[in-house]
Amino acid sequence: MERTRIRRHPERASFDQNDVDTILDEAMICHVAFVEDGQPVVIPAVFGRAGDWLYIHGSPLGRMMRIVGSGAPISVSVSLVDGLVLATSAFDHSMNYRSLIVFGSGRVVTDQGEKRTALNAIVDHLTPGRREHLRPMTDKEEAATKVVAIPLDEVSVKVRTGPPGRVDDWPVWTGVIPLAQAAGSPVGDGPVPDHVEAFIRARSEPNTSTS
Amino acid sequence: MERTRIRRHPERASFDQNDVDTILDEAMICHVAFVEDGQPVVIPAVFGRAGDWLYIHGSPLGRMMRIVGSGAPISVSVSLVDGLVLATSAFDHSMNYRSLIVFGSGRVVTDQGEKRTALNAIVDHLTPGRREHLRPMTDKEEAATKVVAIPLDEVSVKVRTGPPGRVDDWPVWTGVIPLAQAAGSPVGDGPVPDHVEAFIRARSEPNTSTS
Repeated sequence: MERTRIRRHPERASFDQNDVDTILDEAMICHVAFVEDGQPVVIPAVFGRAGDWLYIHGSPLGRMMRIVGSGAPISVSVSLVDGLVLATSAFDHSMNYRSLIVFGSGRVVTDQGEKRTALNAIVDHLTPGRREHLRPMTDKEEAATKVVAIPLDEVSVKVRTGPPGRVDDWPVWTGVIPLAQAAGSPVGDGPVPDHVEAFIRARSEPNTSTS
Repeated sequence: MERTRIRRHPERASFDQNDVDTILDEAMICHVAFVEDGQPVVIPAVFGRAGDWLYIHGSPLGRMMRIVGSGAPISVSVSLVDGLVLATSAFDHSMNYRSLIVFGSGRVVTDQGEKRTALNAIVDHLTPGRREHLRPMTDKEEAATKVVAIPLDEVSVKVRTGPPGRVDDWPVWTGVIPLAQAAGSPVGDGPVPDHVEAFIRARSEPNTSTS
């Protein structure tokens, strides 16, 4: 579709399904954009993914969930900042990143099975391996949670990697500073379980392979 | 204004100017939402800030810059993920974060002095201390860069900090895993300058004070 064609820097466009999967797995939040009375509104949200659906959740009373669940057109951006690209001129500075934009419209999840799948996907996405250790969700909690499904049908991906594209003969260091969402020491009582250890280990260091 | 009233979790709302400044300083990117033919579009962008203006830049040929510079209503979200909040139930899990949303409309910066101020602000924001070492911008580069100013007049801030709000008697570790955008070892030739060292030092560890 026209709106998913990458207009600027088409060389940075990618339609590799692996990129979509990796970006969705690694990102902690998405940004959801919708229109309310002509005004675009963009709000950060946690999310989960199951099959070809992106799931977000929130209060049944919330404005975002109401509009996003109404079937109105929305878009969702998921962005990972992988590094600062330092060149000799301000103009040639850049950023390494992996980002995707989803266009579509949401639907409220009413089927109980799908709702549970969606909520599980959100927990699994944020802290893999934790779900089996949690107290099961009560009916009251489930009723107090609204879930909206957004199809991952129309997705555009944009990726930049590598060193500066152009470097002049000018006396300043150039290169890349890798960046990543990293985890610090857990704050809480008692020994942390394996799934928390694993999470922290997996996010202890920016990944220079994507810088 | 009505649209900046925090509707969900009003206890997480904050209007402290320090929060606005800190969030803008620490974040690497913003997400800009605009409407194109009825379709909301959200796109990540780097930004700078000078006084009460947020500045974004891009190609004069770009769709985002055209629409955002047209005076049409837009919103901008800047979000920092500070930690995962792990409770005993999925329902009570949360995220520590600091985020803001700007509502308003942009204007194309045509004054050369303001344009330079804006471009300097973007460089200074991403890598403080680097600008003085760069090759000066050429007229051609300046002409190939469009800058849009967005007023920081209508900003709402939302912050969550601290441990889980509720913990049941259930045998699973609870607490917070701090998260932050951290820098890794620079990739490039030769010794890195002080401003790069300082950047990496400042972003070497998630800040547990915000967890």
